[in-house]
Amino acid sequence: MIVGLDPYFKSIPDIIKQKFSTLKKQSFEYEARVILEFNIQVIDLIAPHVSIVKPQIAFYELYGWWGVWAYAETIKYAKQKGLIVIGDVKRGDVPSTAEAYANAHIGEVCTDHVAEAPFGTDAITINPFLGTDSLLPFFQTAKKYHKGIFVLVKTSNPDSGEFQDLICEGKKLHEIIAERTYTWGKDVLGKHGYSAVGAVVGATFSHEITKLRKIMPTAYFLVPGYGAQGATAKDIACCFNPDGLGAIINASRSILYAYNLSPWKEKYGIDSWRDATREAVVKMNEEIRNILKTNHGYKE
Amino acid sequence: MIVGLDPYFKSIPDIIKQKFSTLKKQSFEYEARVILEFNIQVIDLIAPHVSIVKPQIAFYELYGWWGVWAYAETIKYAKQKGLIVIGDVKRGDVPSTAEAYANAHIGEVCTDHVAEAPFGTDAITINPFLGTDSLLPFFQTAKKYHKGIFVLVKTSNPDSGEFQDLICEGKKLHEIIAERTYTWGKDVLGKHGYSAVGAVVGATFSHEITKLRKIMPTAYFLVPGYGAQGATAKDIACCFNPDGLGAIINASRSILYAYNLSPWKEKYGIDSWRDATREAVVKMNEEIRNILKTNHGYKE
Repeated sequence: MIVGLDPYFKSIPDIIKQKFSTLKKQSFEYEARVILEFNIQVIDLIAPHVSIVKPQIAFYELYGWWGVWAYAETIKYAKQKGLIVIGDVKRGDVPSTAEAYANAHIGEVCTDHVAEAPFGTDAITINPFLGTDSLLPFFQTAKKYHKGIFVLVKTSNPDSGEFQDLICEGKKLHEIIAERTYTWGKDVLGKHGYSAVGAVVGATFSHEITKLRKIMPTAYFLVPGYGAQGATAKDIACCFNPDGLGAIINASRSILYAYNLSPWKEKYGIDSWRDATREAVVKMNEEIRNILKTNHGYKE
Repeated sequence: MIVGLDPYFKSIPDIIKQKFSTLKKQSFEYEARVILEFNIQVIDLIAPHVSIVKPQIAFYELYGWWGVWAYAETIKYAKQKGLIVIGDVKRGDVPSTAEAYANAHIGEVCTDHVAEAPFGTDAITINPFLGTDSLLPFFQTAKKYHKGIFVLVKTSNPDSGEFQDLICEGKKLHEIIAERTYTWGKDVLGKHGYSAVGAVVGATFSHEITKLRKIMPTAYFLVPGYGAQGATAKDIACCFNPDGLGAIINASRSILYAYNLSPWKEKYGIDSWRDATREAVVKMNEEIRNILKTNHGYKE
């Protein structure tokens, strides 16, 4: 499983905000420093239990360039702690622009001084709407720097079917994109048979997932929607291959703000938010392990 | 017409870079300050001739959070100079995340101190792939703050047809998105009959544009592809409504780096890049004016 680092400023405990209260009048520096401190404490709590985190960049852009600074520093800290970082950026643009995005997020930039990684995430999510030539710079950069890509195939929001489920030439659009994703990934297969090109597949549509699993057997599925978005552990069982591998299940708010949800709300409350978050991660790991035991004969 | 502020660091004249040479070893601060200074000089040059600029955020993210700082400062300076700023960000995500993007780019954030605009652009481009619920936060924010939205309908890259031209239920996907864009825009019609919800339509596909112009009569078309991407003034004639309004034609590299292109290359060279840029803007304005005269009976 992975934890989405989606900072909702209002949900961050006051005890963290108080540390930076003298900065309150600075333009977004205060919010950015609070978010970074919260993320650092969350990373310290969850690092023993998970191996991947996924910051969603929108929640950082919300605080302007200071927010993007917090995004960059969060990535740096998570990597120092040995975690893999997936940047949930959902970028997509015409080829020359896509190349800039690719180098920004999973590549390097070499101008007048040495080559350096602007954000240095290990993988990112991308939007396929513009077609193959707009995605090749991402795949090529991933290959060059040994990074990963997750193509949006079927998203978790209620209206995702409006365009993604349209029947085009006998197939649903998202099935056509899934076929392409499988093809794009053939060039970057790893030694365990999985590709560096994966797919974002919302856990909220279990019927579609079963079909997509067959279309893209070598793709890692990045699966949002568990927890706050309503999908249960049962829903996500079909994201895994028969070998019990191939899916990465994400939860964000249900872990970060567990103190605000039952049963931890009653047990802990905000002052013990750290205990709530720690227990929520452990519980989610257990749920996924049970699913794998039941459905895929997983043994510990 | 509008000028795309897409900084290609290597193409920025050395005379600007020399001002910041003492910063060379600082991580991306040097590149960011050079880019901002270049943009400021470009804005000063073009402000008498154009009313809109369009920074493409990918070329700023390429320099990490320092680059995003240069993006924010560029917007601020352009607005001080009375220009309208379209942020070419092509964002799109599930509803709660889309709301964060919307507030970041065209809205405001109110946390513990006063409400403030993180980036403050007047309009942005967005990607419709996730469906209506993922776009509503953008339309609602645009309505609240009197901002504009350009939905990607038919992009200018060679492979844009791969998904956008698929025949879905008897129509091309981009025509379906165009119909929806027209509908989404009905709620935010201005007093001159144009909507706050416009469309991105690549000038490289003139056949499609004629049809799209009919499907979306009230949408402003943001038209990339003029100049460096190969579309000519003739190609873009069909982007305008019969009244000669409704299209915004973008050029980026052909203006910013005119010193490197014929006929200015021979006439000026890099030391007189400012004269080349100024002349390129004036010439492009003339070309568009001539097209309007020929095709739409435009009179000065």
